[in-house]
Amino acid sequence: MGRDLIRIGILGFGNVGAGAYQVLQENAESIALKAGSRLEVTRAADIDWRRPRPVDLPQEMRTTDAREVIADPAIDIIVETIGGTEPALEFVLSALRAGKCVVTSNKELIAKHGREILEQADARGLDIYFEGAVGGGIPIIQPLKQALAGNRIQSIVGIVNGTTNYILTQMASGGQDFAHALAEAQQKGYAEPDPTDDIEGNDAAYKLAILASIAFNSRAPLEQIYREGISRIAPPDMLYARELGYVIKLLAIGRDRGDAVELRVHPAFLPQTHPLAAVSDVFNAIFIEGSAVGGLMFYGRGAGARPTGSAVVGDLIEVARNLNRGATGRIPCTCFEARPVRPMDEVVTKHYVRMQVADRPGVLAKIAAVFGEEGVSLASVVQKTASGEGAEIVWVTHQSVERAVRRSLERIAALPEVNEVSTWVRVEEG
Amino acid sequence: MGRDLIRIGILGFGNVGAGAYQVLQENAESIALKAGSRLEVTRAADIDWRRPRPVDLPQEMRTTDAREVIADPAIDIIVETIGGTEPALEFVLSALRAGKCVVTSNKELIAKHGREILEQADARGLDIYFEGAVGGGIPIIQPLKQALAGNRIQSIVGIVNGTTNYILTQMASGGQDFAHALAEAQQKGYAEPDPTDDIEGNDAAYKLAILASIAFNSRAPLEQIYREGISRIAPPDMLYARELGYVIKLLAIGRDRGDAVELRVHPAFLPQTHPLAAVSDVFNAIFIEGSAVGGLMFYGRGAGARPTGSAVVGDLIEVARNLNRGATGRIPCTCFEARPVRPMDEVVTKHYVRMQVADRPGVLAKIAAVFGEEGVSLASVVQKTASGEGAEIVWVTHQSVERAVRRSLERIAALPEVNEVSTWVRVEEG
Repeated sequence: MGRDLIRIGILGFGNVGAGAYQVLQENAESIALKAGSRLEVTRAADIDWRRPRPVDLPQEMRTTDAREVIADPAIDIIVETIGGTEPALEFVLSALRAGKCVVTSNKELIAKHGREILEQADARGLDIYFEGAVGGGIPIIQPLKQALAGNRIQSIVGIVNGTTNYILTQMASGGQDFAHALAEAQQKGYAEPDPTDDIEGNDAAYKLAILASIAFNSRAPLEQIYREGISRIAPPDMLYARELGYVIKLLAIGRDRGDAVELRVHPAFLPQTHPLAAVSDVFNAIFIEGSAVGGLMFYGRGAGARPTGSAVVGDLIEVARNLNRGATGRIPCTCFEARPVRPMDEVVTKHYVRMQVADRPGVLAKIAAVFGEEGVSLASVVQKTASGEGAEIVWVTHQSVERAVRRSLERIAALPEVNEVSTWVRVEEG
Repeated sequence: MGRDLIRIGILGFGNVGAGAYQVLQENAESIALKAGSRLEVTRAADIDWRRPRPVDLPQEMRTTDAREVIADPAIDIIVETIGGTEPALEFVLSALRAGKCVVTSNKELIAKHGREILEQADARGLDIYFEGAVGGGIPIIQPLKQALAGNRIQSIVGIVNGTTNYILTQMASGGQDFAHALAEAQQKGYAEPDPTDDIEGNDAAYKLAILASIAFNSRAPLEQIYREGISRIAPPDMLYARELGYVIKLLAIGRDRGDAVELRVHPAFLPQTHPLAAVSDVFNAIFIEGSAVGGLMFYGRGAGARPTGSAVVGDLIEVARNLNRGATGRIPCTCFEARPVRPMDEVVTKHYVRMQVADRPGVLAKIAAVFGEEGVSLASVVQKTASGEGAEIVWVTHQSVERAVRRSLERIAALPEVNEVSTWVRVEEG
């Protein structure tokens, strides 16, 4: 069945675009047998053909004009690997309007404009696939839309940013502080010269927006995702975490709470026994709990030209199969619910708090009293005499509502005996 | 789009059949929105309606005659959850002949008769899906056929049998011997009264046959899969493994060696740092290396009514989408290569060997000489005086061909100074 040849145009021939091209070339024969057609890149657009890339493209296939690729009537599928929203959004929408299916690895685009793009694709019965937008080559979008579609997904907890996971792994194993670990990550090419999007949790929030919208069948508006970065985490927190039986990870968390969903990205204490605790360096992993399947974890390389290229090619094969069967659009957008996002103030978790206080009798009791008045119940406390004149106190609370913890800490920080509330990290038990 | 209603008949209303029914009932509304049609079980066949099951079925839907369900013209999809090959094979082939798509969780059936069944389905343009046959609810068949289809798969290493993983976990953590750990597993319902299929590696071999045939695009004939059970593993092996930096797991291993594939199920030493090493109790996990994606791991519950039911329902949703788009058979069988299986004698791995010898000068040298003569290079040796009059020697070899190791051990066992070659376990580094 199927046509001999399906033609592909690539917009943005950087790392991922070139990676996808390379994978298509390497395994062309088996890909053709699986897809039912040869998949051939016939044209690629990039604004700069002189920068180095993992693989070269024949001169005659290159252009600097993306619109030319989109308008080419011979091309069936557009791959968008430009990144960002400008001009990627315009290109993707034009491609759909031109009746072409689209494969993209652009997390920011789908997180911010997924609704518009998916509605456009659905209206025209076209495929828009984006497996590479989350977790690099780890299959996670397809499993959520297909193999796990019979479940009510109860939670998603992901380590979806390799840069921060590398930094936290270095801090935990080498005792480095944040600034040094970041510098090392930059030197190794794991962190950008401007690392803000990674370390402040923006990148993870994009990925959570995408995962949550599929898992919970409801749009996850980016501006409603709470985000907090890892720069506040200091070496003593790493030591206390270990002592208490935890590791510290930047987690992207989505939880179905019945009346609402929680959507949040922040560093968290995670039990050392949790499957995600062993995920180190630049690796990513996503832990899912489903009503029927129970707990599942997907683990692998969350970035890179070839892993993300693998995801793009997997999508291309699926789109080709659909084209060959006249079945594009067979998995439409599944955001058929509209679930409210619980405000962060109302989220309930345990909390770890580290503070510096005066080393005087009665201080601990005074602080504990504030927690009590605000309704924050305490699970454990450790007091150590610090090197100087003061003392360090580490508290772990029972499940407490965020608002009460915040209010406690504001009051505690204002006490004359308290020099500093140094760190405050949520504790996730699973 | 799509029809209002897609009707399902279930053959074998045991644990998995009832689990799938339960999942379909619980999430009927969202499943209908995802599939494009309501999915309704209208008839189920079982030979014994009196045994207890997780959920009950209305009287009027029950029958004891599978053929009646298969012949029902209103039914679109047949779910086969009987298990075994007789009469499941006949039923599945009849269903396909009657033009119905089939979803099954029957590993033995697909491992033994996959070729015949898939050819039958392909010839008629029908779907035959079997996600639940491997790894319970863990999505692994779909990812291999779809998201990872652009890769050349280099290896599959799986912990795919929960019973043996539970036993080995108990032996490693509690110091129990095999017989006690097995008895405990039976008492907890994790092992069958006759545990042979699990502990001898047959169950794992079925799953490997299925995974390998998809990963390597080539039939994996069951009779060519080497298998060896875990009953020889003794408490001292667990201790040595830990000392040397390993854990012992029953692994299902498929490796692409270029000219041939390796297919084998046996206990193995696995580095404590390998992602699979942390997979304990009844959990399953599958580690895959792909040419583009690198290393990936899929982890979760490998058995049980609801996890396997989750996989069956995921398949049903996919089949329903295909029915609604006239696209059944869109992912045909991908065994388009015919790759030889490397004979076990020619497989190259490291080896761990534990033996009891006379505690006399020159014994170690004499044994080492035999290894040397057979071309087996040694990586490490530990000699300990045993409680009685003898000594215990533990060897770890460098990469060595299996034939040479076997020959060495035959010769060593015949030495007058050697009382016993106690255990011999392959070492997998990744």
